[in-house]
Amino acid sequence: MALAEPVTKALAEILGREALLTDPGDCWAYGYDNSRRQALPAAVAFVTETAQIKALVQLANEYAIPITARGLGTGTTGATVPERTGIVIAFERMNRILRIDPANRLAVVEPGVVNETLQRALSEHGFFWPPDPTSAAVCTIGGNLAYNSAGPRAVKYGTPRENTLGLAAVTGSGEWVRTGVMTTKGVVGYDLTRLIIGSEGTLALITEATLKLTPLPEGKQTLRATYRDIHAAADAVAAIMAQPITPCALEFMDASAIEMVRRYSDLGVSTETGALLMIEVDGPADCLSAAADAVASAARNDGLLELSVARDQEQIAALWRTRKALSPALRHVAPKKINEDVVVPVSRIAAFIEGLEHLSQRYGIRIVNFGHAGNGNIHVNLLVDPDKSDEMRRAERCLGGVFDLVIELDGTLSGEHGVGLEKRDFVEREIDPSALALMRGIKAQFDPKTILNPGKGLPLTAGSA
Amino acid sequence: MALAEPVTKALAEILGREALLTDPGDCWAYGYDNSRRQALPAAVAFVTETAQIKALVQLANEYAIPITARGLGTGTTGATVPERTGIVIAFERMNRILRIDPANRLAVVEPGVVNETLQRALSEHGFFWPPDPTSAAVCTIGGNLAYNSAGPRAVKYGTPRENTLGLAAVTGSGEWVRTGVMTTKGVVGYDLTRLIIGSEGTLALITEATLKLTPLPEGKQTLRATYRDIHAAADAVAAIMAQPITPCALEFMDASAIEMVRRYSDLGVSTETGALLMIEVDGPADCLSAAADAVASAARNDGLLELSVARDQEQIAALWRTRKALSPALRHVAPKKINEDVVVPVSRIAAFIEGLEHLSQRYGIRIVNFGHAGNGNIHVNLLVDPDKSDEMRRAERCLGGVFDLVIELDGTLSGEHGVGLEKRDFVEREIDPSALALMRGIKAQFDPKTILNPGKGLPLTAGSA
Repeated sequence: MALAEPVTKALAEILGREALLTDPGDCWAYGYDNSRRQALPAAVAFVTETAQIKALVQLANEYAIPITARGLGTGTTGATVPERTGIVIAFERMNRILRIDPANRLAVVEPGVVNETLQRALSEHGFFWPPDPTSAAVCTIGGNLAYNSAGPRAVKYGTPRENTLGLAAVTGSGEWVRTGVMTTKGVVGYDLTRLIIGSEGTLALITEATLKLTPLPEGKQTLRATYRDIHAAADAVAAIMAQPITPCALEFMDASAIEMVRRYSDLGVSTETGALLMIEVDGPADCLSAAADAVASAARNDGLLELSVARDQEQIAALWRTRKALSPALRHVAPKKINEDVVVPVSRIAAFIEGLEHLSQRYGIRIVNFGHAGNGNIHVNLLVDPDKSDEMRRAERCLGGVFDLVIELDGTLSGEHGVGLEKRDFVEREIDPSALALMRGIKAQFDPKTILNPGKGLPLTAGSA
Repeated sequence: MALAEPVTKALAEILGREALLTDPGDCWAYGYDNSRRQALPAAVAFVTETAQIKALVQLANEYAIPITARGLGTGTTGATVPERTGIVIAFERMNRILRIDPANRLAVVEPGVVNETLQRALSEHGFFWPPDPTSAAVCTIGGNLAYNSAGPRAVKYGTPRENTLGLAAVTGSGEWVRTGVMTTKGVVGYDLTRLIIGSEGTLALITEATLKLTPLPEGKQTLRATYRDIHAAADAVAAIMAQPITPCALEFMDASAIEMVRRYSDLGVSTETGALLMIEVDGPADCLSAAADAVASAARNDGLLELSVARDQEQIAALWRTRKALSPALRHVAPKKINEDVVVPVSRIAAFIEGLEHLSQRYGIRIVNFGHAGNGNIHVNLLVDPDKSDEMRRAERCLGGVFDLVIELDGTLSGEHGVGLEKRDFVEREIDPSALALMRGIKAQFDPKTILNPGKGLPLTAGSA
């Protein structure tokens, strides 16, 4: 659906010719994300100023045009795919680091700043911003905030909700709002900051974020532990989390993930290995050995096969090799993977992996699991060949079983990827009707005409957006 | 205003005779908080079950009766004072610790649990819940959540918003909702958990909280640093916060606070002392000395007079003596103190204290300052004698000046006490009309008939509740 002439004209006036795409061939590249879904936007607006965003949202309200915010398209749920066409607001050029303030442990950034670019700039001042998605090199802070995306470090340092002080944003009705504070404490009015974080561009478009910084630790030590089976590894995770030293990474791979890597590379772990943990501790240089010892001691149990501690960069790289070989291996093995990021309480990890094995057998779908064990955040990968008769249908039924299992174990359907289009039909399994009604009410407050990313994040209602 | 006969009858049916007060003499004691404001509720309901709370709220909706939630009345803003009479829901008997779960680092509690009672129970498992208001011995978790109250440890461990995973609550329309997750990651739906935390019982009545626990550190080391003036102390605070070891307490007293204590006790600090910092570091026993050294080194500057490190419990007590002598001294010196808890960015502390000195001189009001310097959370105490001609009026004008100064310095009007009645007239100095409109909209979603704690937290509107 092309835009009406006056809309295109108004867009050009707001943005200038250089910052507007309307040709379908040009627009197409801005209509996908890493879910591999794609839809054609009618226009792509490369914003650089808040005033432009306000004007765009007001225009969209006037003509009832959907607006989809986009960072760099690394999301995995279709949240940035303009399913109902309309205007994609691309934040990639609104990417200035406005302020780095070590004494107040904060940075003020525009949403298009790439995570890694920010980390590099902060490291010169001795700081970092804890959220570190795997895609840090190519994902934006705006995207991290939109999905509350974290990564391995969250086990020690938390997610964006624990690391953001305040926001500036434009709501769905085109109002500019400032939320939160410039300080680490504050309790005046309701917490709109965390409400907007994780809302996938459905409530407001973030134009500026005040991030809480953490000082860089002096050093880091890396351990790898292999176990006979998932039970032993899960026991180790629980034991590690029950003692005072919190690791800054506590990653795991299950038997099927290890098996997968084994086919494509030299693993360096014994063939009996049924589960693997990668553990990192950080802190003052003088304390690292003691911290590693404490964690290693918690990691030891009857099912432990081998515990290795890296002594230098080369050994660290060697230990991580298995884990890093996983993603390429996954790409080799199956034409399509359904990559979920569910979370279960740490004490339920073993029960969860066992349940997944049953589902895998029942539906004849290969499932490979790895993830952030310290948070119970498991990336469940269903490997499927869409060309194989019936396989997609079985995979979908299997996925329904995975989500049921997660809920049964007191877990949540998404840890850091969000809901987008992929999971909106499953949200009602987790969220009660009364909570959902409140969320819909809040959405209507921020975005009365359902302009912002319609149909994403929350389940569709009969006859509504 | 007494309740209508059918209401009293329904209350008795919901609660039973033992859990209901309607005699004004009995009710009076439940109508005050530590703001020293007081109002008479028509009834006091000692709830113990969620079903009772749902029934109460539904009844209140039917008869348009205000409901005010109450923990143990340690709040300082009048948020629990039933200004418009109605029913006080007292949570003091709904005080069970439902679950302590070390492997998942969480506890599930009812809102009436006393903070210190919880901490004692958790310590047996090697854990604590970071929020530690000064009133920890007599305040409830429900109250801590209502005001997002923290305390000294927040500088390292955060406030309730960073230490709560999920809630169960009854909204103003009598709906039971479950928010959040049982895990440390989760991004399905909007964040209602943090929205309810800090909302002072105006959105929903918390019936259960899932708290995120932290392992107890092995040890702690205490330092005291005295400085020639506030600039030197503020520089030290900024330097401490800019290096990697975050103290678990970084408290300060200004010259007027020190002077005050000096009158009533033997201080043990030199008469030149213009500011004082209490610093604590915690962590593994082997690392404490190194951590203390790192912080001490950051604390040293040209204005440092003396830096003492406590070596044992007795020395720790000696170092804290000055700080602990402050509250009793404040009670001696003035019939009334207006106790504010504003926050400014750490780098603005010196400018703030200087500005306060000017205001003190200008209005002829004595001001004593101390607080949580690591968060920039300053407890500003205006000492006044209400019997002295004109003094209250001058104090109120002075207070307006304090709030203006806070906003000018990018601060916030409340760090952990909240707004209640005391600060509702000042909220608009901090929060923009557009954000305030969203907050009012959210309030209307949760509590369409304005039953819950009407008139608290947000500024009054013309002709509205």
